[in-house]
Amino acid sequence: MSKTLIIGASGQIGKMATKQLVTKGHKVVALVRDKAKLSDITSDHLEIVEADLEQDFSHAFKGCSNVIFAAGSGGSTGADKTMLIDLWAACKAADYAKTNTVSQFVMISSIGADDPAQGSDEMKPYLVAKHMADEHLINSGVPYTILRPGGLQNEEAKGGFQTTKPDSREQMVITREDVADALVFALGNKQLINAVYELFNGDQTLEQAFD
Amino acid sequence: MSKTLIIGASGQIGKMATKQLVTKGHKVVALVRDKAKLSDITSDHLEIVEADLEQDFSHAFKGCSNVIFAAGSGGSTGADKTMLIDLWAACKAADYAKTNTVSQFVMISSIGADDPAQGSDEMKPYLVAKHMADEHLINSGVPYTILRPGGLQNEEAKGGFQTTKPDSREQMVITREDVADALVFALGNKQLINAVYELFNGDQTLEQAFD
Repeated sequence: MSKTLIIGASGQIGKMATKQLVTKGHKVVALVRDKAKLSDITSDHLEIVEADLEQDFSHAFKGCSNVIFAAGSGGSTGADKTMLIDLWAACKAADYAKTNTVSQFVMISSIGADDPAQGSDEMKPYLVAKHMADEHLINSGVPYTILRPGGLQNEEAKGGFQTTKPDSREQMVITREDVADALVFALGNKQLINAVYELFNGDQTLEQAFD
Repeated sequence: MSKTLIIGASGQIGKMATKQLVTKGHKVVALVRDKAKLSDITSDHLEIVEADLEQDFSHAFKGCSNVIFAAGSGGSTGADKTMLIDLWAACKAADYAKTNTVSQFVMISSIGADDPAQGSDEMKPYLVAKHMADEHLINSGVPYTILRPGGLQNEEAKGGFQTTKPDSREQMVITREDVADALVFALGNKQLINAVYELFNGDQTLEQAFD
């Protein structure tokens, strides 16, 4: 049975996706820095691999046919970690995926990664990192699905989506739980291969939004 | 007559290359943030364009057939500037060069940019930026020459070179003046198109070292 590697499985979205997938009976390899952070998930379908994304983490890819990159350096660290995690670790993940002939790499990117120049001064370094990581994945030859969610919110899932840009900046948001749902929907979905989608809460089902 | 755009012409190496080229009768467009920094160079062959590398600087490329990227965020700034200048401005420069059908883009990269993982913790973010900028240039389709000098020194030019890695770390150095000489040598040299060279002081002439 195929296994899905989730990089950044102890992050908020990564953990939600991990829970959903093992509940559905998928085999998941969860790559985390500290396995204690996943102690609330117990499942026979879950294999935890501890690794540091700043080092070689290629061993985690063994036997995995799908990869989700849900890692991020987080808002509280400096641009050096943005360079090493959001950019470099993502590039390494794409390279490892290529070596392991992964059949789908789902990347959590960000709105604004298409054109970092339009971002605020504060966001620009992060958007450059996400842009270059996406570019590296696209050029890698690994089948990819790039999701670029709007501003992430912690509310409960709304269950409604849209992949077209809303009219107002206030609407360019989505809950983390909905992003996790979209990740699970995208996984193994051949129609979404080699495509880039922006993602917001809206009025459509996932099927409609990605059609 | 063809013009060469030097991006970062008021930096140490950029200024040396600018002086050499105008002295040789080349037409140079010097892109700087503050033209006062080039007030010591007066030449009919020099055209100064003031621009901010964090903004759109495509206007500087007009009529230029060659480009030298000698800009750098410098050691005293943070990783956010490394992201915005060493990586993003370099990528934009490659894109502008492509739009303007530039015939050669000479990039000053760095030793270690081939494999950032081997760099020190302090250097790694910078090496990732240089690696990704080089990768973007290579994939752009613009004819390129990438020079990766060793540790830069301020001594007088030694006039001897090598492009093979020296045995000891102490020898992996080169003076800025020698890098500027190598830049001028590389410019317009068709044998060096679409190639990447490490560069150190050594016992060879430029012709021998690049042969």
